[in-house]
Amino acid sequence: MLETLKEDVLKANLDLPKHKLVTFTWGNVSGYSKEDGLVVIKPSGVSYEEMTVDDLVVVDLEGRVVEGDKKPSSDTATHLVLYKAFPDIGGVVHTHSPWATSWAQAGRPIPALGTTHGDYFYGDIPCTRKMTEEEINGVYEKETGEVIVETFKYRDPLMIPSVLVHSHAPFNWGEDPKEAVHNAVVLEEVAKMALHTYQINPDTLNMQQTLLDKHYLRKHGKNAYYGQ
Amino acid sequence: MLETLKEDVLKANLDLPKHKLVTFTWGNVSGYSKEDGLVVIKPSGVSYEEMTVDDLVVVDLEGRVVEGDKKPSSDTATHLVLYKAFPDIGGVVHTHSPWATSWAQAGRPIPALGTTHGDYFYGDIPCTRKMTEEEINGVYEKETGEVIVETFKYRDPLMIPSVLVHSHAPFNWGEDPKEAVHNAVVLEEVAKMALHTYQINPDTLNMQQTLLDKHYLRKHGKNAYYGQ
Amino acid sequence: MLETLKEDVLKANLDLPKHKLVTFTWGNVSGYSKEDGLVVIKPSGVSYEEMTVDDLVVVDLEGRVVEGDKKPSSDTATHLVLYKAFPDIGGVVHTHSPWATSWAQAGRPIPALGTTHGDYFYGDIPCTRKMTEEEINGVYEKETGEVIVETFKYRDPLMIPSVLVHSHAPFNWGEDPKEAVHNAVVLEEVAKMALHTYQINPDTLNMQQTLLDKHYLRKHGKNAYYGQ
Amino acid sequence: MLETLKEDVLKANLDLPKHKLVTFTWGNVSGYSKEDGLVVIKPSGVSYEEMTVDDLVVVDLEGRVVEGDKKPSSDTATHLVLYKAFPDIGGVVHTHSPWATSWAQAGRPIPALGTTHGDYFYGDIPCTRKMTEEEINGVYEKETGEVIVETFKYRDPLMIPSVLVHSHAPFNWGEDPKEAVHNAVVLEEVAKMALHTYQINPDTLNMQQTLLDKHYLRKHGKNAYYGQ
Repeated sequence: MLETLKEDVLKANLDLPKHKLVTFTWGNVSGYSKEDGLVVIKPSGVSYEEMTVDDLVVVDLEGRVVEGDKKPSSDTATHLVLYKAFPDIGGVVHTHSPWATSWAQAGRPIPALGTTHGDYFYGDIPCTRKMTEEEINGVYEKETGEVIVETFKYRDPLMIPSVLVHSHAPFNWGEDPKEAVHNAVVLEEVAKMALHTYQINPDTLNMQQTLLDKHYLRKHGKNAYYGQ
Repeated sequence: MLETLKEDVLKANLDLPKHKLVTFTWGNVSGYSKEDGLVVIKPSGVSYEEMTVDDLVVVDLEGRVVEGDKKPSSDTATHLVLYKAFPDIGGVVHTHSPWATSWAQAGRPIPALGTTHGDYFYGDIPCTRKMTEEEINGVYEKETGEVIVETFKYRDPLMIPSVLVHSHAPFNWGEDPKEAVHNAVVLEEVAKMALHTYQINPDTLNMQQTLLDKHYLRKHGKNAYYGQ
Repeated sequence: MLETLKEDVLKANLDLPKHKLVTFTWGNVSGYSKEDGLVVIKPSGVSYEEMTVDDLVVVDLEGRVVEGDKKPSSDTATHLVLYKAFPDIGGVVHTHSPWATSWAQAGRPIPALGTTHGDYFYGDIPCTRKMTEEEINGVYEKETGEVIVETFKYRDPLMIPSVLVHSHAPFNWGEDPKEAVHNAVVLEEVAKMALHTYQINPDTLNMQQTLLDKHYLRKHGKNAYYGQ
Repeated sequence: MLETLKEDVLKANLDLPKHKLVTFTWGNVSGYSKEDGLVVIKPSGVSYEEMTVDDLVVVDLEGRVVEGDKKPSSDTATHLVLYKAFPDIGGVVHTHSPWATSWAQAGRPIPALGTTHGDYFYGDIPCTRKMTEEEINGVYEKETGEVIVETFKYRDPLMIPSVLVHSHAPFNWGEDPKEAVHNAVVLEEVAKMALHTYQINPDTLNMQQTLLDKHYLRKHGKNAYYGQ
């Protein structure tokens, strides 16, 4: 069942330690099959060194386990909310990658300061509001997804494929698990450079909108001319 | 004698350079057998590349060498004080891991700024007071243990499994040597992110208590639901 | 055609990830044959793991593809402007190396603070002015080259073989592709140390001109005495 | 001639990139044979990947080449001044290791902020004064040695085995080449942590003298009790 997607999800999970985005088991990737309405996700608390395709769990959009012996990631409910709210995405990644997490802990969005950012993110990478006591004490992981969706009420999730969850860490997404991991790598690089940029010059302005347009649109959309 | 514990202690010591927590021989791990009332600890000043099970030293809680040809770690007395004062721990780790050591040198506790911290530490990671002249000139390594115990007078060492010794470096512990090293890795990551968080936003507040409760308790205690 | 130059350009491109100057495909190296008036350059968006000599593209100074099946780097026009304006260079490198890119995002030149800088750069490493709306919306990559050339109106490009493009990232050059990559590595190291120097002492002055003269000239020019 | 010393000097030079203390050829190690009054030193500008014992150069204390086909390191004259002024040392290391170099560029000594420092350096690691125009334009590398010696007029070079040369980079020494490299590694670690310590708490005080005494003297001198 979903063999190709499982291979993609396994590879994407194993790419997290390769790109130094995770310590221990602090991260998870899922992939979504629109045709089947099913999500393949990492099991909870299993180390990347030992993980095989058979450890992956298949759940439906209501979180019911359809296949697999393991418990799915404790963050599964967050992934499911994102797949339901953002119908064009096919992969979700959560990490505690240290530079992006530092911005999340600081409760600050990451502004677009240069073309590295603009090549992937069409504007600020937002930070959610703090969750309420009720949300935290409720169905916490589901509410985490809801506060992300609320943050994207007036944003296009495909044009800003990452978010910082306040006092927590980033979530990223993309057309498939591989692209979601790619975006997680870029986010970490952009988060690191943004702090250093402000340390060099605390008065740094956001990049010009024209330059952001140019860079984002030379890589995305119908007039893109980057790549083969 | 204590063959399994020795293997665990050796592996835990070798995990220190693997996780980049030590330079040269600047770290040591011990493990405690409650049944036997004996501690297995790293020898003093032996490099990790050359260390074997036969180099490990077995001492009783009074520091008397029970087995082994080498001198035990110069920090042995600190470990012993911790095993006596914290009866539920089975492993102790000392390192000079650079981010945590920087907080120790600054004499500042590491506040709980996000869920990475909250998943492992149920509150601030404290920094001891400065030791007195008498303590430093007395049985120094034993007094180092005593000032740690004093710092935990009103704290549960299993809920805050690390401490910063003022002007020195961290000590960490856990149910066994492996868990103690795990906590040492988390401490270093949390210490790094805490500094960067303040650099991004000097006015960062501690995380909400409700969020700390949620994250700590979803991984610890009788209602935990993380992992398999 | 140009087999030796192609080998040099391939090796120089592969040296970018080796020196940790690039993430994914964020960098490109070209080499110029003065005799032939032709440039060998990396293809656009091809990963370094898969790249072979056959992927390289040969273009003339007007950007016409003379050999190769792939599209040349999207930054090709920038490289061509540099080869035309700086007739003594034989290699150009563009990266988004994170420390130098942070200075570019901050819009600040990197001052000569010590001998590491002075061994390679005979003065500040400049940052271009912001590009105008017209330049960005025009032939953007060509205009990027023009604003670099403008920045070097009163500078010798062989004595300052790097530049920061405002809100973007560095370009570097040299007598050949290998030297251009060498300079890119030095730039990154110098950019990192310059920020840390100011963090240690915000009032740090530029190095003495006499010391800059001494170090630059012991490695460059007719009185050089460094190396074999 | 001096085969053992040559092996030691080669190994010590190759340990520089292993410990990430050098970029390209930016470092050199020498060793001194008191019996023979001869120094073995790295050749100038030869890469570490290619270096063999036969590339090493033997010079006397006046800098005359006694053996070897290559030119000795351009910093040889600095090494020689140190061997003549500090009769108990047997190895000298120069690097541009980035954290220590940042302190040198900032023109600031590294204060003793914790026990990692105190285990190796019995007080501040000093920074030389700026060199005069005459010194820079004179026999520069010899004068670099002289300004180091001047800095140690009231210091014991074996108790403080490193120095920062203003606007330049560190020199380190020890009883033999291996110990000199060891000290260079410690210096880099201490330099990194000192900056981070001040970033956490700008009002950090130097460590207590009693604690510095305790740590330095438990590893050095006749009452040392660290190691086997």
